[in-house]
Amino acid sequence: MLTSAALLLLLFFNIAQAVHRICETASPQSESGALLLPLAIVSDHDSKSKDSTSWYSSIKYGNLAIDSSRSSSFVHWLGSDNITSSLNYNGRAMEMSDLKVFDNRLLSVDDKLGIVYWIRNGSLVPWVITSTGDGTKSTPFKGEWMTVRDGDLFLGSSGHEIVSEKGEFENDDQMFIRVISANGAMKVEDWTPYFVKLRMSVGIYFPGFMVHEAVQWSEYHKRWFFLPRYASKAPYTHETVADSGCNYLISSSDCFCDFNVTRIGKLDPHKGFSAFQFVPGTNDTIIAALKTIERPKNDGDKHFATYITVFSIGGRILLEDTLVDESKYEGIAFVDVRDCL
Amino acid sequence: MLTSAALLLLLFFNIAQAVHRICETASPQSESGALLLPLAIVSDHDSKSKDSTSWYSSIKYGNLAIDSSRSSSFVHWLGSDNITSSLNYNGRAMEMSDLKVFDNRLLSVDDKLGIVYWIRNGSLVPWVITSTGDGTKSTPFKGEWMTVRDGDLFLGSSGHEIVSEKGEFENDDQMFIRVISANGAMKVEDWTPYFVKLRMSVGIYFPGFMVHEAVQWSEYHKRWFFLPRYASKAPYTHETVADSGCNYLISSSDCFCDFNVTRIGKLDPHKGFSAFQFVPGTNDTIIAALKTIERPKNDGDKHFATYITVFSIGGRILLEDTLVDESKYEGIAFVDVRDCL
Repeated sequence: MLTSAALLLLLFFNIAQAVHRICETASPQSESGALLLPLAIVSDHDSKSKDSTSWYSSIKYGNLAIDSSRSSSFVHWLGSDNITSSLNYNGRAMEMSDLKVFDNRLLSVDDKLGIVYWIRNGSLVPWVITSTGDGTKSTPFKGEWMTVRDGDLFLGSSGHEIVSEKGEFENDDQMFIRVISANGAMKVEDWTPYFVKLRMSVGIYFPGFMVHEAVQWSEYHKRWFFLPRYASKAPYTHETVADSGCNYLISSSDCFCDFNVTRIGKLDPHKGFSAFQFVPGTNDTIIAALKTIERPKNDGDKHFATYITVFSIGGRILLEDTLVDESKYEGIAFVDVRDCL
Repeated sequence: MLTSAALLLLLFFNIAQAVHRICETASPQSESGALLLPLAIVSDHDSKSKDSTSWYSSIKYGNLAIDSSRSSSFVHWLGSDNITSSLNYNGRAMEMSDLKVFDNRLLSVDDKLGIVYWIRNGSLVPWVITSTGDGTKSTPFKGEWMTVRDGDLFLGSSGHEIVSEKGEFENDDQMFIRVISANGAMKVEDWTPYFVKLRMSVGIYFPGFMVHEAVQWSEYHKRWFFLPRYASKAPYTHETVADSGCNYLISSSDCFCDFNVTRIGKLDPHKGFSAFQFVPGTNDTIIAALKTIERPKNDGDKHFATYITVFSIGGRILLEDTLVDESKYEGIAFVDVRDCL
């Protein structure tokens, strides 16, 4: 682990650098080889996002430190700000699911509205809107993950079959993704075969399921990386899904015919991955990820909690699951939000 | 005027053709040279758009007939359907401002949300979203008009300076327009100089004003056509604007340095143009337009009414202002909505 003195030095190093008015960190490495990176996470407060007449999400920000031998990591939270909007769908809104810098804009996606917002100077500029399925449906797109590849933003949903309460197949709407150019042009891609193959790579077949909220393209590895939130060989039900957390890291080349599967840490079926990013300056070998608990309580309410963890793509743990908050955070990005908010 | 028998024959002709499952009418002319065209108009019910937990707009549809000598016209309404949505901004929504076929889709724009919807099989597919001003603001775009030019959709706002209650200049946000490609790519254009020159073409200078809701590009004439809703040499106030209706038809070539101004019919300061389209099959020489009344009543409510009128671009009236409804309709399109709804 880092010593406190080394950590304080690193923090000081970062504060001295913080005057750069850029959103994304370009040169994260200190002279010692240690990394100290500004990071931010965004919340999905679920039905508790409503605040009198508007809706809000919280952005918590701080620094992530990794020592020069890449063996331990630490997060220091500095503060939190709320972002609000009056746009809503049926009284729900601001249930943010990811955070990504694209075309020099800090973006987040609301999974209740299907709107990707540009977070700019503390306000929300609606950038694109889309609905579920093949592009002809009216129900909002349940945006769960965003990643950038070859200058396009890929926006995905949970990547599993929708089933009825009885477990009967209803549709593949959440298997369609969106490919969005910097000018807002949008294409629909049917990823049903990809999500089905991903699931098969760990031996899961329908009515078993795998739910995705954490997907990134690695330009360095030329591979897709998936940290599923839930996976089970048993059928999907609203009761059992919360106990289907998993610890797979699955990567795939573009053909979706060539999979690497790694187990990350100890399996805790109550926790599932809700977001991740590759740590800048590590050649996409180290990942910082959020794990989330979302379980029904006896009083009809839900228990939420979010943990942060850092690990290598080989499965070496640099930071064990560390409690962030008793609420749900579904997006993480390496940005100094004090320069973007 | 058309005789009733001729009109019935034309209606029969149209009904026989209605099996074509296309949204826009391709060959509107009967053998006699008379025109009979399916048309639709869309409502902005203002704060009355709310219907328990959702919001709605009405689409009224019928046929517009023009005799073979192009001297008289007639509208026969056939029915009305509602379109609904649960998306809203601060409890307002579905205040639709225009109707346009673009890329084989019937589109309408909500002036409270800044969303352009694709109206498809009776449901609303959100297609693009944008906010006011130069593209960096968070307040929804007050979309008022849509037209198609060179394969792009032009989406405009009211085209006048925003002033405070005291009449002081606040911003030019509603002078910026959007140019949208069929794939959803969006560009912002600052039309401030164009709207200022348009106003000057009839001798109006700030703090005088001109408010636009009815704008079309004519591919045939290679000119922009504007039917302003309000215009006045006096400063803009919320009280006086409702009595500033005008009867200008202004056209301009692309340079916005060459204006034709025609007066259409008798001036009624309570009525202003809220939408128009060139009548298909007339080489953009005949216009069908909606005029709207929106005036405060003594009880704090508002009096709404919509009229339809048909005239030539030279100012010859084919159909005098004819009451459509005691509510506000702000979009018109030549489509058989029974094929799109």
